Formats: sequence, C-alpha cells, structure tokens
Amino acid sequence: MNWNTIFAKRTRWMRRNAMRELLKVTLQPEVISFAGGLPAAELFPMQRVREAVKQVLDTVGPQALQYGQTEGVGGLRDWIARQFRVQRENVLITSGAQQALDLIGRVLLNEGDRVIVENPTYLALLSAWRPLGVEFLPAPSDTDGMRVDGLEPLWPRQPKCIYLTPNFQNPQGTTLTLARRERLIELARKHGMAVVEDNPYGELRYSGASLPHLFEIDGNVVIHTGSFSKVLMPGLRVGWVVAAQEVIDKLVQAKQAADLHTSTLNQHIAFELATNGCLAEFVPLLRRAYGERRDCMLTALAQHFPQGASWTRPDGGMFLLVTLPKHLNATELLPAALERKVAYVPGEEFHLNGEGRNTLRLNFSNATPEQIAAGIARLGDVLKNTTVDTV
Amino acid sequence: MNWNTIFAKRTRWMRRNAMRELLKVTLQPEVISFAGGLPAAELFPMQRVREAVKQVLDTVGPQALQYGQTEGVGGLRDWIARQFRVQRENVLITSGAQQALDLIGRVLLNEGDRVIVENPTYLALLSAWRPLGVEFLPAPSDTDGMRVDGLEPLWPRQPKCIYLTPNFQNPQGTTLTLARRERLIELARKHGMAVVEDNPYGELRYSGASLPHLFEIDGNVVIHTGSFSKVLMPGLRVGWVVAAQEVIDKLVQAKQAADLHTSTLNQHIAFELATNGCLAEFVPLLRRAYGERRDCMLTALAQHFPQGASWTRPDGGMFLLVTLPKHLNATELLPAALERKVAYVPGEEFHLNGEGRNTLRLNFSNATPEQIAAGIARLGDVLKNTTVDTV
Repeated sequence: MNWNTIFAKRTRWMRRNAMRELLKVTLQPEVISFAGGLPAAELFPMQRVREAVKQVLDTVGPQALQYGQTEGVGGLRDWIARQFRVQRENVLITSGAQQALDLIGRVLLNEGDRVIVENPTYLALLSAWRPLGVEFLPAPSDTDGMRVDGLEPLWPRQPKCIYLTPNFQNPQGTTLTLARRERLIELARKHGMAVVEDNPYGELRYSGASLPHLFEIDGNVVIHTGSFSKVLMPGLRVGWVVAAQEVIDKLVQAKQAADLHTSTLNQHIAFELATNGCLAEFVPLLRRAYGERRDCMLTALAQHFPQGASWTRPDGGMFLLVTLPKHLNATELLPAALERKVAYVPGEEFHLNGEGRNTLRLNFSNATPEQIAAGIARLGDVLKNTTVDTV
Repeated sequence: MNWNTIFAKRTRWMRRNAMRELLKVTLQPEVISFAGGLPAAELFPMQRVREAVKQVLDTVGPQALQYGQTEGVGGLRDWIARQFRVQRENVLITSGAQQALDLIGRVLLNEGDRVIVENPTYLALLSAWRPLGVEFLPAPSDTDGMRVDGLEPLWPRQPKCIYLTPNFQNPQGTTLTLARRERLIELARKHGMAVVEDNPYGELRYSGASLPHLFEIDGNVVIHTGSFSKVLMPGLRVGWVVAAQEVIDKLVQAKQAADLHTSTLNQHIAFELATNGCLAEFVPLLRRAYGERRDCMLTALAQHFPQGASWTRPDGGMFLLVTLPKHLNATELLPAALERKVAYVPGEEFHLNGEGRNTLRLNFSNATPEQIAAGIARLGDVLKNTTVDTV
C-alpha cells in the first residue's frame, strides 16, 4: 500500500511539533533543558496523590473506572463553574487544554476562515488549527501583550475569531493590561468576533496584581480554556472549557466523537485534589519556587548574556523570550548549545511570516535554580563565542 | 453573540449520540439497562488497581504524572507491539479506541471520500467521520459478518477505505469468517483500499475458535485499533493503533494537535495491570461472567419474546441485535419500555438509509443474570402488548 497517495489533504498542514521532538533529546539527564514547558516534577505532592487515589477508589469505587458522561464528572464541573460564577452547563471537561483548543477549532472554523493570533503565539495552537485550513492573521505585541489598537488593518479581513493567552503568554511571558482587555472585548463585540482566551498559567503569578479574565468581562463573546496541568500535574490530562451553553453543547458533540470522555479516574483525582486542600497548598508553593527560578534566570541573563541581547520580564507563568542581536539566528545556534548540554526552543517556531529568527524561548519552571545559573552561563558562552566569531 | 452564525459548517454533521444521551436516563438505579456498552463495574479488580497505582507511584515516581511523549509510554508500546509481532514504531497509544478512530479519519479522509461500512455499524464511528464530510457506502451483512462478496457494486464508487469490526460486531455481535477475512484482504489489495479493523471486543470470546486479525493477514493494508476499555477498565481511556510506520507517523502528528498525549498515569497503570498478571487473570473471569450473561439473555429471549422476533447469537463481545416483525418500530416502543423500567438502543441508530427500524440492540455485559432474566421478561411483555394492540 502506498499510504502517501491515501492520506487526506489536511495532512499537508500537519507537522511534528519541533518542540516536542526536541524534548526527546533533552531527556538525557546531563542536558540542562530550558526547552520544554515542563513543570518541576520533583515538587509534585506525591503523598497527596497517593491519598487522593486511595480516597477516590474507596469512596467513588468502581464507578471511578467506568465510562462517564462526555460533559465530565458533575462535581468537578460544579467546582469549575463556581470559580467562574457560571452554571455546570457552561463547563466541559477536556483531555487537557490542548483538546479544548482542538475542539474549539473544529466547532468554529471553516477552511479559509481568518483567525487573529499574537505573533509569536502558542505553537500547538497553530498545529491544532492549521489542518483546518484557516488563515492566521498575526497581530503585533509589545511588553504589555497584544497591541489591541494595532488590529485596525485586520478588520477588513473579517476575522472570525481571535486567540490569545492574556496571562504570561507562551512564548513571551507577557500579560495583557486591563485597559487592553476591556478594549479587546469592545472590539470583539463591535466586529462580532469570538474570543478564545487560553489561560493555562493564570494562577502562577509571582509579581503584580491579578487582572480579570476576558471571560469575566464578557462571558458571551469569550470561550475560556484552562487546565490542571500547570497547577497540579500534566500527566492527569484534565482541562476545561467555560463558555456560553450553546458553545458547550457543540463542543460536547465534537468531544463525543473525539474520545467519548476524559478519563473518569483522573477527573475524580483532580476533583479530590482541588477540594481536599491540596491545590490550595500546592499553588502557593509553586508560586514561590517558580518565582525564585524566574528571578534566578533574570539575574543569570543579566550576568552572562552578551550586550545587545534583551528579554521579557514575566510576572508569572513558565517562559520568557530572549531577543538576540538581529544578525544572530537561534535555530543555527542550537547545535552549539546542545553540544554544551543546554537546550532551548528557537523562537522562530512560534512566529508567523518567518519572523523571530533572532529570538529564543527559555523555560524557567523545570530546572532548579542551580541548573538555571549553570545553564544560562553555558548559553552565554555559546552566544559570546558566536558573537566574536561572526562580528 | 449569535453563536449559530459563527459555528463551522461541519457542525451540521455533528449530533449528540442518542445512545450516550439515553445512558443518562438509565442512570436511575431501578432501570434495568441493556442500552449502554458498559462493562460490569462490580467485577473490576479494585484491589489490583489499588496495588497497581501504588506500584506506579512508588517505582515510576513523579514522571508518572509528568508530560510524556505523544507516541505513548515506551514499555506499553513494546508490550502491544509484542502481541502483534511488530515494532514499537508501529504502535501509537490513544485516549481510548474512539480517539484512534477519530485520528484515523483525520489522517485518511477528505470531504467527499467514500467509506464502506457494514449496515448496521458502530454508531460512534459514524459520529467521528461524518463531520469530515465523507460518504458512507453501506455493505450487506449476514450472521457471518460483512458479505464480502456483496461489495461488487461498490467498487465503481472507488471507496478509499473500509471500516469493520470483525469480532463480535457492535451492534450485531457477528464475527467475520476466516474465508471472508482472507477474501477481504485480497479485495483491499486489488482495489488499493485501506482497511480499518476495529477490535475492542476480540479478547472476549465465549464460544468458537479464535480467528486471525485482518492485521495479521496483511499488516500493510490494515490499520488495527484496540483498547483496554473492555478487558480492564474504560475509565482509564487507554487504547491503541497498530499500523504501518508511515501511518503511525501521521497519526502522531494528528494526536499532538488533538491532546498532546494520553494520560501518563493511566498508561502506566494499564501497563502495570497488563504485565503483573492482573490482565491474564481478569480476562478469563470476564469471559466466564459475560458468557453466562449471554447464555442467560438467549434463554430469556427464547422464553419471553413473541413469535416473529429473531436475534443474533454472538460468540463473544457485549451485544446482540434483535429483529422484530417488520411492522414494529423499536424507537416508538422505547417509551413503553422505559415506563416498565427497561432500556435498549433502537437499532435504527446504527443503520444507514433509514433501515433497521424494527431492530434493537441489547447489551448483555452490564446487567446481572437475574436482572437480565427480569429485564427481558419485562421487554417481552411490552412487545406482546404492542403486538396485540397493533395486530
């Protein structure tokens, strides 16, 4: 069988996520990796998980391992609904927030539809929606997130939807200001455009004051996605969508066909951890640990990176973006970095229109402060050597 | 926001799976349900699950809760590969077999492509592939499964793919004979058509001799899907695809975008249960229990169902299909059945072209033998009353 003659046309728009491929290389223990978006596994509250699983198996019993409703476990939906002051009918449990994005794309987007995204934006959003044949319209951004008033030239293209991560964006780490949030909702209403608010990192704030979700400003134009992956454990694969009921209804139909429902066991474990005090205890611990790692990385960057490099200073999340002098190409530098046993993701991966070649994304949640100091020093060496060679 | 003007065209082809909606009604404890495709939760080896989770958390540690590779946990892939005498690269772990079907559709099928399916066929396959805009070509079947030599009229339509469940088909419970398996592969080769072999029930055989998988006859034209849902617990949501490496490669790309990867924790639990002796102990227990339930249902049907009704006699799986006299409509009879606190799925749901209105699917794995005897008696009453009323 010549499978290449059989594959669907949309597979031309599929490709392996370079970052996830890179993760395989970084599994070597001697590599200090700033590449993945991995939480710090050594902080996972293992004893709490043991107790939660025991509690679920003892009290929910065999039903915790049985088929469940597509919408999700009722108690967990109610718990999420309470956070957003909505009803259970406004909540769908998904197999991680990635599935939420995939389902939203399937339910909203036709081939040829136009979608506004920040440039750079979350790589796996592009992977999820590109096979639908949509056109991405890149929006400019600065250190305050998307430049909402820079969208003017895009309105004649009649974008159907805008995707953004207002809190601690991946890859930039930037946060959308309150004024821009309000203005964005105004514009979405005016132009009849759906807003997809992706919020995996919102709870991980290390400095500055919390801002309202776009969904809180207008729960009708906004579809909000979230996840336990960053505040509990990603291996559970439990995320959610909060949206208008008619949107949830369509998403449920899409999810039935996609995987019937999210693991009953994992939903119950997440619910137990969310309600037995573990989550309330663990998130502050993460904030302290990741906040320290962020500070450590910012200090090391100032110390080791060459003149002419600049970087974002995130108030939360897991990433920052470094901009190198224009003549440097982060993809070309990667082999030299890997040779020095340090890894990052070239920023080009997150950009549209071939931009961002002189940028790189650094994760600061996974490596320890000591590793961060050592890794940034190594990376600084690589950059300085290259700068000397090429200047 | 008027969401109805925003939804993608493909949502017209989405609908709530009637069966899964019906499952909600049947959650009332006094209802005897033959409707769902639920395993018998009271048989789940809970103590074994407790031990397996403990073992995973103790030995794999925090990595069991961390992000993982899209392809799946290596050990589990190897274990599946050994069952099929293939390599790890031929195996993808999916979030249940339903996701396997969804991903296969995305990778193979363009709008307008033609797909041969049995009539009746698995409802959730139709739900998964209908939004892709494919055309289903119904193939005739009899008590020996799909009538492979009845496909002749379909070849001029140039079907790209054929989907079938050779073992204990859902909803009919029928099994494809060896001669038909061999002939089907010959025809697929001749016409350059991919074969999707869905095998959720293959291990649950209660009578007759095992037959080779289509994949074993030709591992290149066949994409094989399987699952732990029916032989361990569906709440884990762990399934798999076994196929040529170039097919797996494309499916991995689709899965990255769909949900990154299947729950790491659940993959490790399934791997532990598959290799620590639990699976080898549990499957024979299921065969005895479900075999007894099947026999009990067949006996009760003979005793309570009116003249003119007939039914399949499955060698395994979880379902049989009843055919009522032509003038009866199983959908119209359902309210009367629910009033008598007994549920089934109207066979019409599984049929194309509006056929099968006088059929109903009965599940025999979920209810106890006592419930089966009582439920079939009630259903027999409903049918006899109706027959008297309408004749």
